[in-house]
Amino acid sequence: MGPKNVFYAQSGGPTAVINASAYGVIQQAQQHPDKMGTVFAGRNGIIGALKEELIDTSKESPDDIEQLQYLPGSAFGSCRYKLKNIAKDNTEYLRLIEVFKAHHIGYFFYNGGGDSQDTAYKISQMSQQLNYPLSCIGIPKTIDNDLPFTDNCPGFGSTAKYIATSIAEASMDVAGMAASSTKVFIMEVMGRHAGWIAAAGGLAQNQPDGAPQVILFPEIRFNKDDFIKKVLQSVKHAGFCSIVVSEGVKDQNGNFLSDSGSLDAFGHHQLGGVAPFIQTILKNECDLKCHWAVTDYLQRSARHLASRTDFEQAKALGAAAVDHALRGENNVMLTINRLSSEPYTWNIGTAPLKDVANVEKTMPENFISEDGFGITQACRDYMLPLIQGEAYPPFKNGLPLYPTLKKELAVKKCVNAAFV
Amino acid sequence: MGPKNVFYAQSGGPTAVINASAYGVIQQAQQHPDKMGTVFAGRNGIIGALKEELIDTSKESPDDIEQLQYLPGSAFGSCRYKLKNIAKDNTEYLRLIEVFKAHHIGYFFYNGGGDSQDTAYKISQMSQQLNYPLSCIGIPKTIDNDLPFTDNCPGFGSTAKYIATSIAEASMDVAGMAASSTKVFIMEVMGRHAGWIAAAGGLAQNQPDGAPQVILFPEIRFNKDDFIKKVLQSVKHAGFCSIVVSEGVKDQNGNFLSDSGSLDAFGHHQLGGVAPFIQTILKNECDLKCHWAVTDYLQRSARHLASRTDFEQAKALGAAAVDHALRGENNVMLTINRLSSEPYTWNIGTAPLKDVANVEKTMPENFISEDGFGITQACRDYMLPLIQGEAYPPFKNGLPLYPTLKKELAVKKCVNAAFV
Repeated sequence: MGPKNVFYAQSGGPTAVINASAYGVIQQAQQHPDKMGTVFAGRNGIIGALKEELIDTSKESPDDIEQLQYLPGSAFGSCRYKLKNIAKDNTEYLRLIEVFKAHHIGYFFYNGGGDSQDTAYKISQMSQQLNYPLSCIGIPKTIDNDLPFTDNCPGFGSTAKYIATSIAEASMDVAGMAASSTKVFIMEVMGRHAGWIAAAGGLAQNQPDGAPQVILFPEIRFNKDDFIKKVLQSVKHAGFCSIVVSEGVKDQNGNFLSDSGSLDAFGHHQLGGVAPFIQTILKNECDLKCHWAVTDYLQRSARHLASRTDFEQAKALGAAAVDHALRGENNVMLTINRLSSEPYTWNIGTAPLKDVANVEKTMPENFISEDGFGITQACRDYMLPLIQGEAYPPFKNGLPLYPTLKKELAVKKCVNAAFV
Repeated sequence: MGPKNVFYAQSGGPTAVINASAYGVIQQAQQHPDKMGTVFAGRNGIIGALKEELIDTSKESPDDIEQLQYLPGSAFGSCRYKLKNIAKDNTEYLRLIEVFKAHHIGYFFYNGGGDSQDTAYKISQMSQQLNYPLSCIGIPKTIDNDLPFTDNCPGFGSTAKYIATSIAEASMDVAGMAASSTKVFIMEVMGRHAGWIAAAGGLAQNQPDGAPQVILFPEIRFNKDDFIKKVLQSVKHAGFCSIVVSEGVKDQNGNFLSDSGSLDAFGHHQLGGVAPFIQTILKNECDLKCHWAVTDYLQRSARHLASRTDFEQAKALGAAAVDHALRGENNVMLTINRLSSEPYTWNIGTAPLKDVANVEKTMPENFISEDGFGITQACRDYMLPLIQGEAYPPFKNGLPLYPTLKKELAVKKCVNAAFV
């Protein structure tokens, strides 16, 4: 039979460095050919297991695997898919066991955020309840930085670096235009329930009252009068105002300022478009000329501006999943433990998957300044280490070099009409 | 009296490399202390001359001048300000001469796009009609790439590199999400009347039918049925669709798809928000889950991803303004002449300001593919040289190092209540 194979999959929204974790898994598994066999990557996350679409990563060229660490997006495809509750309906789990058995899978590494760790937890329950031996390790990943137990989440550092750099650059733009033209720049960022990403914009502020002068957090209910007062103050003193607004900002009644009304597979509201909403207020009520940007996917796919710290952590966690599994650890999510902030040192630990699933880490209250429009020194001290260093991808002919992976599927062994 | 001084100013929307031109002017002027005196930078463009707000660049530290070349935005402030017609009202021109005389200005370098070259042309007329000896040189700059006579405009190459890289990265994101979630990504870019910037998105397409599968150009009237058909085809074949849309796209009647209704100082419509408009169509008529981004100022201030070719050209044009003025050239805009595409070689020439002012260069028809949704090989051959090479700014503590210039103003000598 030989050593057991690995099923690795990516889930949820990608980050600039999720494929660095995939690279870490593949590279480290290759170091232990006696204990680990082929690394199969699920095509589109757990859906790849249900459909028996297993990408055989051993068929990729060494050069392409090397390049994998620089790829944005989810190289093997991701998913937003919620497994049913095993106690109510175990059909999907029986299918997973059928597929895992057929492909001799003994290791399950799931790379994702909160919803994905819930999936990993359900798989670990399956392993126990249906008696299928499987080493389940969750590899954290989310730009939202909202997983519990871990000091930070891989992916967040790169998004933070992108957001801080982008608002610094665009603020210089509007600063130069303000004398006779645009006075306000508004940049919308992600972060459904927590202001981690919005707060990262504050890292660009290099002097008191410097840009961005206003950050609108999901944690602070939007007060129009206070907001307008703050913007007008900034325009008066600095000549312009630079604003970072989280998609998750809510009004006094707790409703999202701009809610497109559609839901994703987990029942979350799909948001977007709060920047034009803010512009309309400033234009109609203050006659201020505004420009606005919505960063959307750009903020999580900007591999060209990845944080080296983030990149190294993502790779290390991929490798650590292999190491922890080989040490017999099971049903855990890997965590990053901060040992010290200055100098920044960290190591890798674990947390039980059952405690991780569906728990969102909110931002500490003392990260938001007293007036509610900025970040504190505590927040800077926490975030600055995470954006340190650059990790540029190789460029070719003016653009990042992005190889096309073969993504060759393993031969199917258990065709089941219900799942194909 | 000594050598004549220089008045240099920046006008219109900044680019990622406009300050590289400023750096070129200052560095080159310093090479000729016998012929050129102080380089004064207008605070907020020509307005700085009218208000006698002249930034004395000799007061900046050599280190800060060195860093100037890496700064986004308009370091000395820009403006959108239209001088009156000299034949109808010469008040402003008399004021300019008063200020120029007082500060011994003999060289006028204006760094801007079409509207700014019009200003430079009016100043050159003033010099002739009011008998004030002044060497007037226009330094081209615009991400819109729409100046005539020059093969390309400094600033465009960096925006093109940013747009192509961003859509490449975000396309990988949506490609990975499409199986169970978002199927369409829409990225809005600038380009009021010409599709140069939108076309740059096409450089990311590395295989036929690759992403971005759809580009919406201002040159092509929007046909909803054809558009939907193309998107659905792409979703069927590739699983997803990646779209670049220009803010300047018009409907069948010639109206902007999304027009905010406000006007800038030149009477241009201020646009923005076509991406959500496109999303609404795809959601309502095809039930496709979309994500959308609006790049706005980010695309012209992304100094962190500047094109080295663009950066070198911007610097060279700044230096060339000095050289041409010292050679006695006058009333011209500098141009970039392409000598060959492979290998890419270029030199610097001139065009008469009178012929440049208010002429917009449109994109050649043969740059847009037959179906109207992509670019041709001719377009790629033209654009690829312009995005070659990287020119990363220095980073410090995780973010680009942006010094704060002193911007010390020269002592005012001609206070005039009408202009302060």
